[in-house]
Amino acid sequence: MNFASDNWAGVSPKVAEALSEAAAGQAPAYGGDDWTGRATAAISETFGRDVEAFFVATGTAANALSLAAVSGPGAIGFCHSDAHIAIDEGGAPAFLGRGLTLTHITGPEGKITPDGLRDALSHYPDAAAWQRGRPSVVSLAQTTEAGTVYTPDEVAAIADIARDRSMAVHMDGARFANAVSHLGCAPADITWKAGVDLLSFGLTKNGAWCAEAIVVFDAAKAPHVAAHRKQAGHLFSKSRFVAAQMLAMLEGGHWLELAGKANAAASRLAAGIEASSRARLAWPCQSNEVFAHVETAMLERLQAAGAHLYPWSVRGAPDEEASAAHETRTRMIANFATTDAEIDAFLTALGQNDSSR
Amino acid sequence: MNFASDNWAGVSPKVAEALSEAAAGQAPAYGGDDWTGRATAAISETFGRDVEAFFVATGTAANALSLAAVSGPGAIGFCHSDAHIAIDEGGAPAFLGRGLTLTHITGPEGKITPDGLRDALSHYPDAAAWQRGRPSVVSLAQTTEAGTVYTPDEVAAIADIARDRSMAVHMDGARFANAVSHLGCAPADITWKAGVDLLSFGLTKNGAWCAEAIVVFDAAKAPHVAAHRKQAGHLFSKSRFVAAQMLAMLEGGHWLELAGKANAAASRLAAGIEASSRARLAWPCQSNEVFAHVETAMLERLQAAGAHLYPWSVRGAPDEEASAAHETRTRMIANFATTDAEIDAFLTALGQNDSSR
Amino acid sequence: MNFASDNWAGVSPKVAEALSEAAAGQAPAYGGDDWTGRATAAISETFGRDVEAFFVATGTAANALSLAAVSGPGAIGFCHSDAHIAIDEGGAPAFLGRGLTLTHITGPEGKITPDGLRDALSHYPDAAAWQRGRPSVVSLAQTTEAGTVYTPDEVAAIADIARDRSMAVHMDGARFANAVSHLGCAPADITWKAGVDLLSFGLTKNGAWCAEAIVVFDAAKAPHVAAHRKQAGHLFSKSRFVAAQMLAMLEGGHWLELAGKANAAASRLAAGIEASSRARLAWPCQSNEVFAHVETAMLERLQAAGAHLYPWSVRGAPDEEASAAHETRTRMIANFATTDAEIDAFLTALGQNDSSR
Amino acid sequence: MNFASDNWAGVSPKVAEALSEAAAGQAPAYGGDDWTGRATAAISETFGRDVEAFFVATGTAANALSLAAVSGPGAIGFCHSDAHIAIDEGGAPAFLGRGLTLTHITGPEGKITPDGLRDALSHYPDAAAWQRGRPSVVSLAQTTEAGTVYTPDEVAAIADIARDRSMAVHMDGARFANAVSHLGCAPADITWKAGVDLLSFGLTKNGAWCAEAIVVFDAAKAPHVAAHRKQAGHLFSKSRFVAAQMLAMLEGGHWLELAGKANAAASRLAAGIEASSRARLAWPCQSNEVFAHVETAMLERLQAAGAHLYPWSVRGAPDEEASAAHETRTRMIANFATTDAEIDAFLTALGQNDSSR
Repeated sequence: MNFASDNWAGVSPKVAEALSEAAAGQAPAYGGDDWTGRATAAISETFGRDVEAFFVATGTAANALSLAAVSGPGAIGFCHSDAHIAIDEGGAPAFLGRGLTLTHITGPEGKITPDGLRDALSHYPDAAAWQRGRPSVVSLAQTTEAGTVYTPDEVAAIADIARDRSMAVHMDGARFANAVSHLGCAPADITWKAGVDLLSFGLTKNGAWCAEAIVVFDAAKAPHVAAHRKQAGHLFSKSRFVAAQMLAMLEGGHWLELAGKANAAASRLAAGIEASSRARLAWPCQSNEVFAHVETAMLERLQAAGAHLYPWSVRGAPDEEASAAHETRTRMIANFATTDAEIDAFLTALGQNDSSR
Repeated sequence: MNFASDNWAGVSPKVAEALSEAAAGQAPAYGGDDWTGRATAAISETFGRDVEAFFVATGTAANALSLAAVSGPGAIGFCHSDAHIAIDEGGAPAFLGRGLTLTHITGPEGKITPDGLRDALSHYPDAAAWQRGRPSVVSLAQTTEAGTVYTPDEVAAIADIARDRSMAVHMDGARFANAVSHLGCAPADITWKAGVDLLSFGLTKNGAWCAEAIVVFDAAKAPHVAAHRKQAGHLFSKSRFVAAQMLAMLEGGHWLELAGKANAAASRLAAGIEASSRARLAWPCQSNEVFAHVETAMLERLQAAGAHLYPWSVRGAPDEEASAAHETRTRMIANFATTDAEIDAFLTALGQNDSSR
Repeated sequence: MNFASDNWAGVSPKVAEALSEAAAGQAPAYGGDDWTGRATAAISETFGRDVEAFFVATGTAANALSLAAVSGPGAIGFCHSDAHIAIDEGGAPAFLGRGLTLTHITGPEGKITPDGLRDALSHYPDAAAWQRGRPSVVSLAQTTEAGTVYTPDEVAAIADIARDRSMAVHMDGARFANAVSHLGCAPADITWKAGVDLLSFGLTKNGAWCAEAIVVFDAAKAPHVAAHRKQAGHLFSKSRFVAAQMLAMLEGGHWLELAGKANAAASRLAAGIEASSRARLAWPCQSNEVFAHVETAMLERLQAAGAHLYPWSVRGAPDEEASAAHETRTRMIANFATTDAEIDAFLTALGQNDSSR
Repeated sequence: MNFASDNWAGVSPKVAEALSEAAAGQAPAYGGDDWTGRATAAISETFGRDVEAFFVATGTAANALSLAAVSGPGAIGFCHSDAHIAIDEGGAPAFLGRGLTLTHITGPEGKITPDGLRDALSHYPDAAAWQRGRPSVVSLAQTTEAGTVYTPDEVAAIADIARDRSMAVHMDGARFANAVSHLGCAPADITWKAGVDLLSFGLTKNGAWCAEAIVVFDAAKAPHVAAHRKQAGHLFSKSRFVAAQMLAMLEGGHWLELAGKANAAASRLAAGIEASSRARLAWPCQSNEVFAHVETAMLERLQAAGAHLYPWSVRGAPDEEASAAHETRTRMIANFATTDAEIDAFLTALGQNDSSR
């Protein structure tokens, strides 16, 4: 009953195997090797377009360096008030972003809405840019921190507003695979075709050891990523160890297979919660994350029974998203290795406890 | 005949195996896992002292974050003019170091001498700190970029000078294993016992995929490493993937076994070069690196014959270290997988070409 | 009828005169001169305590360098959502603050409340510092951006909370003189006696050309200000030109005399607005700033009649502070040179336009 | 007998007067005022070309923000090893330059030579830019730190090399007026006509309180200066106080008149030293600075007699520039207010002491 986080899982056996296979032999360092070239080609194929891909160590680095890539002095970025970049990256956007300031936008279900973005931008008119800074980038998390997923139209609506202000659009894709799996669309549909300029393409949570890439769809817009990556200490010498993981994940759609499994597990969990009288979903389950208002006493009993799951605080949440006094908002995350048995045991505990009241 | 770099090698089979074994099962993320705890303990044991160890993605990050850890505003660092941090890290010390300025010191055989450091420091008296900045750290590469190795006494002599100016001492240990293997000393002898405060402990070049740690010997001197690592995007979520590599390397002295093999290969190569009339050693061979002045025409023939080795420029080298007009200074690096056959083939080519002239 | 900003005014004749008197003769550069020593002593006397004072070019620099002085890697600062540092300094806190992230707190009348600060801090528990960053400093604007003034007790209540979390307290005193004049207290009462560690002591808006200082009440808490000021390019060579202004302002309480005149002018303006049927005060007038909801049509007529005053947008304002549909929130600022005649002309225009409807 | 530095002088009476005249009346803040517009026009006229001019607080800020303006991630700047930016600005180029690394070039008489620059650049081939960083800017001090002056041809020769590598050319003009006065050329001749892209135009040492501007000759090359200046806290609110000084200096060539007086005083001093048996010029006197090897015993006697002058250390100086064992290299600086009497008294002391031995 471990729903703590998808980065608690190890790695898919296919990834482990691919890494072992890449272990022997000499190859140029710093990305000059064949694996890296092939992985970049596989990413391009995945997105239906020639892209630039820059491997980095973490999703935090991918996000912060992406934002930096489109942010000059005085730049202002925009993101949801609960976004990972806003609160969970220890100040990386400001530091790696060389002074980038993030402005937070509240919105229901973890999403930025067009109205929310327009309102936020209204405080940064071009005429005040000399003093307030210049809007440079909007960042969407896909999947969001609420476990919800932007539709292609929703992404495009945000991107249109950004374009009007000459801003770039970044997507934090730490759980990109889960969003694609949920939507059943092509990766291109929610990225460059919808107006996204840079993607933090994360396959670590999805089932790799360490496979994060900054994917740049229009190289002209972000000419300094390679130099900045090096200067931030994120250019791996043995680049093939990331590339081999990427290749294993993308080959034959393994990444979507893993995401599909995780999403299905979350759906099973969500369905059980909806059927429970002791918990209710906080937001629709659209990925591998389930958020529920759980009776606080029940949550404690579940934790005592060995379930790993965390309370979840939200900043600036609309009233309709608040927990009741006797409830606690709780996050549960499934991963590729989550079993039905694990979920059923959890739901039984939820029910048993229920009946034992 | 691939002597391009030790990071061209893949990984030791033991490392690959350990990683595969760590692949399954749930474990806390961000370093809260058992592997990370055990790896830190293994590092402490290796150094004969309780240390703090912070895994990061690259040696560049380990170096720059180490320097940053002991460098406030206006800090001045000191290093050899050919140090990796001085010229090969794309400005990481200045960027991750939040404005750190490095001052370069020339010195024979890739080493800083006490006189060299004293002379450099003479330009930064305390009375001028308000204007010139404050000396904060001296960084030694062990192994140096010339393939040479500081003795414990040499390290201590530098550290004594640093201590007199209230400076910290950092060691760039990208090839630390090779130095330890060469000296046959305990790791402690050339680090904290000789006055080193922070070590970039690199096992990647040594035979891992990605196993770099900032080792802090006196935690009180560097209280912000964890926060800075996070802010720089270097806190791995699946920390066990580095920890498992570290454990495989340190267990049973595997890291020194690998370094010993690489050093022996380099010695064989160096001996052959010394015996050749077409090349001569530039610096003594004390690690897995061999630097030689090779007749330029010969170098071209060797490269044409399939040998991978690079010309090597030096900044501020004393006259006695210069190549003659018809020579080119050349770097050759052995790694754990370098074979005697490979070396002999190279030496034969050196000889054959010689005789065929 | 110029109420655009207090930095639209020139300088007090006494300041101009003092500067002329300081023009001749040789004196050590970079703050080693007598004027600078005397000005620092005058600041110490003003605050009833030995302080360190660092002149810088602008209030923006004073604020950002103050915040930086108490903020290490991953630091989180807290301020009101309408604070100057939050929105009007072009990202200086993040840049000069070397990656500082600011968290915004809404609150009525431009003030942070203890509850607001506690709530904001609840999202940054110590246990999550490794990921979210560490609360390092809370910044209060005294006078606030709403023209209101914290009482000594209000400052102390905020500082108590900060102390509990080992945070520093910074005060943005761009209009510090106006607050002191309004409260009729000693400068010490709303600074170090109430728990403030660093003050951006601004006399430029008050009537100098350029007289801004970072005042550090407890030097041990901020040991790197001098070095950081130099590294940020804020150490004036001819320091006496700031010192002479400081001395002229502080001598005989000239700074409070000027602030008193500006405050009185604002009070006269506020009283007239309260008596008007076409405008109403948005917040109480406690300084030299007046904020009013003005009928939009009237505002346009006033501007057409030559009045300089600006619409004022607010982020995250509680409902009770919002303008009605036919109104515009407007800012009017008096300065030391504002005349009664100017105010009366404005109020007449407000009335005439009123009667002519 | 005060030859300590030209920033020990106060200000020219004309500057003081102009500032007093600008003291009264309201004017837009942050550079929207008439004075600032007129000063920018006067700078354009001075350089015979429409320029952008950005006032900042100090020469350090002007230099670092200029370098930053043309330096992206991984940028490498080049300067003389004794340049002010290299050693006397407390790390500002690295900090305000957002991670800029400076490479030092030695050269005789304080100047970079074309060969010196070519050699330094040879260590930064384009092919290694991914690792070593990309050469972005070369910075020349005009007047140099050795008091010498580049001819227009010398500047152009450096700029040609820079152009070949797509680098920008910056000029540190802290003593620009002295160079122009010495050469008798138009300001354009040693700036944009010779290939300079950005100039730190400093009039503070020349006789103002605080009058430093970043002058951008080709705005397209440096689009972010305004935003970066704001973010660094260098946008003055009462911009007219700099503008008024600029106008007073440029009007009727007052700046060159002052520089001419300072240069003439230095020439008188240099001539006296050349005639002395106890001191000899270290470098030719081409500005308001005189560098001499003075017998150490004599130097002490002069200082005891009340002369202000400083020993001067040089890094990486060629042998021919070294002092003899019994000598000390000494810097003497004249300013606009230096009197013949002061110089003659000094020279007499030099002679008297001589004869009295």
